[in-house]
Parts: sequence; C-alpha cells; structure tokens
Amino acid sequence: MAKAPVLTPQADDFPRWYQDLISKAELADNGPVRGTMVIRPYGYGLWERMQQEMDARIKKAGASNAYFPMFIPQSYLTREAEHVEGFAPELAVVTHGGGKDLEEPVVVRPTSETIINEYFSKWVQSHRDLPLLINQWANVVRWELRPRVFLRTTEFLWQEGHTAHATYEEARDYAAMIHKDVYGDFMTNVLAVDTVLGRKTAKERFAGAINTLTLEGMMGDGKALQMGTSHELGQNFAKAFNTTYLKGEAEREYVWQTSWGSSTRMVGGLIMTHGDDNGLRVPPRLAAVQAVVLAIKGDDAVLAKVREIGAALEAAGVRVVVDDRTDTPFGRRAVDWELKGVPVRIEVGPRDLENGTAMLVRRIAGGKEPVAADSLAAVVPQLLEQDQALLLQQSRERRESRTVDVKSIDEAVEAAATGWGRISWADLGPEGEAKLGEHGVTVRCIVAEDGSVPETDDQPGNIAIVARAY
Amino acid sequence: MAKAPVLTPQADDFPRWYQDLISKAELADNGPVRGTMVIRPYGYGLWERMQQEMDARIKKAGASNAYFPMFIPQSYLTREAEHVEGFAPELAVVTHGGGKDLEEPVVVRPTSETIINEYFSKWVQSHRDLPLLINQWANVVRWELRPRVFLRTTEFLWQEGHTAHATYEEARDYAAMIHKDVYGDFMTNVLAVDTVLGRKTAKERFAGAINTLTLEGMMGDGKALQMGTSHELGQNFAKAFNTTYLKGEAEREYVWQTSWGSSTRMVGGLIMTHGDDNGLRVPPRLAAVQAVVLAIKGDDAVLAKVREIGAALEAAGVRVVVDDRTDTPFGRRAVDWELKGVPVRIEVGPRDLENGTAMLVRRIAGGKEPVAADSLAAVVPQLLEQDQALLLQQSRERRESRTVDVKSIDEAVEAAATGWGRISWADLGPEGEAKLGEHGVTVRCIVAEDGSVPETDDQPGNIAIVARAY
Repeated sequence: MAKAPVLTPQADDFPRWYQDLISKAELADNGPVRGTMVIRPYGYGLWERMQQEMDARIKKAGASNAYFPMFIPQSYLTREAEHVEGFAPELAVVTHGGGKDLEEPVVVRPTSETIINEYFSKWVQSHRDLPLLINQWANVVRWELRPRVFLRTTEFLWQEGHTAHATYEEARDYAAMIHKDVYGDFMTNVLAVDTVLGRKTAKERFAGAINTLTLEGMMGDGKALQMGTSHELGQNFAKAFNTTYLKGEAEREYVWQTSWGSSTRMVGGLIMTHGDDNGLRVPPRLAAVQAVVLAIKGDDAVLAKVREIGAALEAAGVRVVVDDRTDTPFGRRAVDWELKGVPVRIEVGPRDLENGTAMLVRRIAGGKEPVAADSLAAVVPQLLEQDQALLLQQSRERRESRTVDVKSIDEAVEAAATGWGRISWADLGPEGEAKLGEHGVTVRCIVAEDGSVPETDDQPGNIAIVARAY
Repeated sequence: MAKAPVLTPQADDFPRWYQDLISKAELADNGPVRGTMVIRPYGYGLWERMQQEMDARIKKAGASNAYFPMFIPQSYLTREAEHVEGFAPELAVVTHGGGKDLEEPVVVRPTSETIINEYFSKWVQSHRDLPLLINQWANVVRWELRPRVFLRTTEFLWQEGHTAHATYEEARDYAAMIHKDVYGDFMTNVLAVDTVLGRKTAKERFAGAINTLTLEGMMGDGKALQMGTSHELGQNFAKAFNTTYLKGEAEREYVWQTSWGSSTRMVGGLIMTHGDDNGLRVPPRLAAVQAVVLAIKGDDAVLAKVREIGAALEAAGVRVVVDDRTDTPFGRRAVDWELKGVPVRIEVGPRDLENGTAMLVRRIAGGKEPVAADSLAAVVPQLLEQDQALLLQQSRERRESRTVDVKSIDEAVEAAATGWGRISWADLGPEGEAKLGEHGVTVRCIVAEDGSVPETDDQPGNIAIVARAY
C-alpha cells in the first residue's frame, strides 16, 4: 500500500497544496483579524534572510534606511488624486485614540509616498540635498477581501524605497537600476526565481506613477506572480506636497521621484516556484539552514559523530543545524526537514559509524547515497552551489516551456489556462487588454522584441506577456 | 567674541538641549499625528546597530524571530483583567476597514502578550514543545498625552520577547538571564551606559506580570530612564488563553511565561547619557560610523590621500566614511560630524600632505593633534577601544557621584532634585512610595544590599533606588 501523501498533490489542487505546505512546514497561520497572518519562526527565517540580502543590495545602491510613522492624516492621501482613488477602498482607519474620538481620523499607511513627501519637502532645499535616497522596512495595511497567506494579506511586511532627484533622467535611471540590479539580481542569484523584467501597462500602473517596472515570475501552476515593482513617480507627489529645490540662482524646480517595493509576498513566490509534492525546497543561498545533520538514534557515539560533522560543516562555511532530538522518532523528523526544504540532509546511525559513512539526502537534486563522513565538509558546499543553479534552471525551463506565442484574444485566454501567452502589444492594445480582463487574464508586463525593458509602451515590436495572476 | 553655541547648553535647559540635538544632528522629526516621530537616516542607523547587537544576543539566548499581526481583536485584551486595565487608556482603535464599519473594532497592539498567547495555546501541546522562545521586532502604539521624541512616542519600534516554559523556575531563570546576559551585557558593553539592575515594586510592575526586572540608567540631568524590562508573567496569560501542556500521562498544566522588551527609547537614553554641549557622542562599538576622514580642500592630492586613509582604516576593521564633499565649507562639515558624535575625525589639508600627517580629532576623549598619516590604521582601533571604556566609566562615575544614601521622604525628594537616592525598602514601603509619588519621585527599582537583584521585595536589607524619571 502506498504511503498517504503528507500534502495534497499539486496536480490535484494547487491552492490546497499551497495551504497544506504552509501549515505542515509551519511557515504561517491565519491571524484572528480577517486577512492578517502570523509568520511562524521558520517562515520568518526565510523573510529575515530575504531582508539581509535585499538590504545589502539597497545600501549598495546608495539608499539609507529610515522610519516614518504608520499613522497618516487622512487629508494627506487626498492630495494626489490618482493615489487616493487607488488606495481609498483598502484603507484601515483609526477613529479613536487614548480614550477619545480623534478630531481628524488617521489612516494606517497602505504605502508611504504621502507622508514621506511631507518630510522631503522640508529636507530638500538645494541641489546639494539631492539625490535623496531613502528606504524603509515596515508593515503596511491594505484591507483584503480575498486574502491568501503571504500573497494577499491585510497587513504585510515590506521594504519601500523613496527617492528624489534633480532631473527626470536621473529618476528614470535610478528606478531602472533598482529594478535590475537590486530586485533582478536578488531574484536570479538568491531566490533562484526566473523573472521577466518589463513595464506595466497604463492600466496596471501604481496609483500616482508615470511608469511602473515589474518582475513577473511563473508559479508551479503556470500563473504569474508580481515579485516586486519599481515606479517612476514623475513630479506628481512633488507637486502635491511642494517638494522643490533651488535650481540655479532663484528658480525652484519640483524634484523627480521614484518609489519601489518588495514584500513578504516573495515568500509565497518562493513556495509556489520551488515547492513540490514533498514540501518546500529552499535555495541554498537563501536558506538559513542549508544542511541538517540527523542522529538516527541517541547512542553516545552517534551523537558525538553528528556534532563532529556539524562542526566540520560549520567550519566549511555551511549554515548547519544538528538534529539530536532522538526522543522524537527519526522518520517524523526526516519528513519535517523534507517539508521545510532544507537542501541537504545528512543522516547518521550506528551502522554508518561502522562504515565511516553518512547517508547524504539531497532535497533539490534528489537522491540518497552513503558518502565517506570525512569528505562531507568538502562535498556539501559544492552540492549547494549545484542545487542553487538547478533551481534557477528548473524555474527558467518551466517559464520557457509554458509560454507560447499567440495572435488573438482567444488564443491568449487558452494559453493562460496553463501558462503565459506572448502577443504583439500593437495588436492587443488597451482595448484587447480590457477584453482579456473579462476572462480574468491580465497583461503582466510589456517587453521589447529583444527581451529588454522598453522605454515606452508603443515602441515597435513590443510584446505583451499575458497570464492569470495571483 | 565667543562663538554662539550650536545647541542650548545642557546646564541652561536640559530638555531644550535634547530637542536641539535631535534636530541639529538630524536624528528625528516630530510626525504629523501627535506623538509620532520620523526617524531620520542617522538616527535610524543608531537603531539598526542596536538591533543587530541585540538580535545576536537574543538568538544566542535561544529565541527565534517571528511576526504576529498588529491588529488585535478588542476582546483579546479584556481576557487578562490587570492587562486591560493597564493598557485601555492608551489604545488606538480601528473602527473602519476596506470602506466599511468593522463588526468588532480592532486595537493596534500596545504589546503582544494576548495575541501571542492565542497562538501559543495552539502550538504548545506536549512538554516537547517547551520551552517555546519567540522574539518579535515590531512597531507598537500607546497613545501618549505628553510625547517626547524617542522617550515617549505614540508609535515606537521595539523587540518583544515571549516565552513559555514547563515550570516556574525555568521561566524565572529565563527572565533573569535575559535581564542580565542580553540587556545588561548590551547596555554595558555596547551602549556603554551604566545601568542598575533591579526589580520593580508591585506598583511599577508590567500590567499582568508577577515580577518585572528593570535596567535603570542615570541621564545627564540626574533623572532616571528605564532602558529595558524583563517580566515573569507567571500563569496569568496562560490561564486567560488556556495555554497548557500535557504533564505526565493525562494531566494538563498551564505554562509559565516571560516577556521582555527594549525599544527606540534606548536612542533617547544614549543621547542623554553620552551627549554634551557639542552634540552626541556615539560609543565606538555601536557607531555605524566610527571614523570620518575629511578632505579640507578639493585638491586632487588631498582627495587621493583621504581615500587612501579611508581604505587603510577599512582594512583595519574600522567602520569609516570618507567626507570629500568639498563644495560644502569644511567648518560646517566638521561641526556636523561633531554634532553627530562620530568618535574619531581625521582631517587632511594641503599642509598635512607636505608633513605626511593628518589632524586627529577625538570626539569622546577630546583633543586634537597631528599624527603620522601612515600610523592611523594601527592607532585608530586602539583609540576606539579607549573611547568605549571612557564612556562607560563616565556614565558610572556620574551615577556613583550623584547617588546618595537617604533616610527620609524629605531627603529622598531632595536627592531626586539632582540625582538618585538610596533608601531602605523596609523603611520606605508602599506607603512611602505613594508619598514620594506626590512629589513626582518614583521607586525605580529595588536592589539587594550587595547590589544584586533580590528574589523578593521583602528580602532583608533591600534598598529602593528613588528618582525622578523620564
């Protein structure tokens, strides 16, 4: 008789598989207030590692971290017309504080362009104050009617960058640099998630932006997930908040701005890109735990050996955990580490000791074989690099094999049932986009003929990537 | 004619000096909603370094980071009677979300004991699930009627630890370990803030705790600041949320809990402990910028030299910034770095080049002298260690010289005008504590005769430290 699967198989019910995995691998729980989530330690560990890697890239891009209040006077949001229109339906409003009704209700930030511009307008005086490059790690709230853990939650964690520049060109180039060198580099080289970098159509732009750049990943079920966005804000918020600098002797000029964000949604993207029917698979460069050394039994000699192997791996630069909880059955622990997607598992029992070996189990490439225990410190770092490359390759192959060129709305809708469609943007246009919308299909982004990010929507040869999306 | 001071002198008006420093050193601004604050990049950099150092100590203490929603159903707070009584007057309440009135209002967390226990009660089943050691980095809201930047703000940033244990003794020991090995070690060895470790009186305890341990620092004006607290919660929240584990075969036992927190208030404590009339002084181990190398003029040779020195210091493990913004007057930049309290300043001009020297200015020990440029990489790390020790010594000397033994309420009130009083707790008691309160003086903590943390309030020889406090 076959073993009952730990998770609902992906092929049976992908959304249910996703929920099962999040629960069984102890990544998160639903919060008590609808749409909120509790991020459990193992799930939060994934986010912490994302933060570390992203933060280093953001600092390298010249931005400094700061913190702005989460309570924003309601009146701020109304100053930029498109912005308030976009966010008003999702706001949480505090009407009561310190035992009294508030004179002016305050909203919990859905994003911080408005409150940040209130301060930029004070801090920026001369061209010497530019560029002003700020990033914030924070929680934000957007009331969700159809919440899904990590993907769409009422409260989520993110980083939001906000910059001000002297010229249009500088702002445009900075938004593009963040898109490619911060987000793109992180997705490819750490998350091992293949993404398409493109620009959003006018319809899909951030509320208040003149251009939105996006990274779109293909999930295990062929749907798309927006993994991060970088916006050119033009002078829209600068005009609403009077953020100007002295240009030359007396002339004041509005600053040109960008904003860009990536969130705990990336954890959902990681799961749906790399997860399989046995659980999560964590890319080694991201993993807080790259290898686990399990004692099969609690013999002193076995315990000594797992600790010795653990120390050797740590000395070789591997992020390793020794699992010596032998009062919990070995099988249960092995399944648990498999669910959690730790790339390399090293199992040691009494028989292995006799042979001078350990059982090496690879979560990503698959396979299980005995290896000489004293070779592990040399072998494991190499396997981790192979696993990292393999995950990216699998992600890329999925996207390539499930993306098709299409020529009509009907073909596009059909393509979106199993993957992505590529269609000429000149042929599709905003009208075709609206028609696709009736079938639940959206234009994820526009890319140039050569695959690069086009500078305008109507550049000849532009291609729209269309899909169903989370 | 003497130069006009950049800041209001401490001796003239300490609160005004504090506000001046925060503004001039660009640490923070007031937020638009009363009591909130904007933490500017240099101020946030101090907090980031605090986070890094604290986080490493918290992980060493075995706790894992996680994240719980900031929205808590109002009904949760009412389950623990003392807890709701303590926090009800300070709550911010969301009554409106996603365009609708909410059926049950939600509060923005003032602290997370309640929501965390809701989940602990699900996660803890057997003794194998204990101890459960969780930490969270988050924002919290407590509506403030008399706000002061960093010290008392409506929204602040903090870490809050929450643990569950099988026995009273384990919980007690864990709270004490956090108090001493996490908070105490951090204050002494990183912040260089001398603190007294003691226990709070029943009156000053956290709402819902059976014991609160505290660290109290003496500020530059002789007042006290609570720098962090670690609480034994007993089984109060466990009973309110039915958090139990299976003890033996069938018997269920309530868990024993701790919680402990430290916040952006520490930034205020840092300023008021180490700041002087010229600005902030940042302890080298905390400083994100330990040394700055300033080009006095924009000559190519000078610029080349400051970069060379910067590279040499970086190679020697010093966190260094090269200030080559020679379009801003040198004097203004020097004052700015002085205000920001960077421990070591190295100034290089054309004349220094000829002599092979650089001017070394020490912010903490004071003094300014030319040194051989090629000796800096060897010299600076040593000076930083000296400066670190000096700050701690000065903080300790202040506390010792401004603390006096007193025998009556009147003497205690007099002592609190300039520093701290020490009075027998057996003599003072809760009644004397109430009388002191009428004069705005509080018992900061109780310590044992030998200076250790007493196990009970009524241990013979216990001494109350009394002071005015922030």
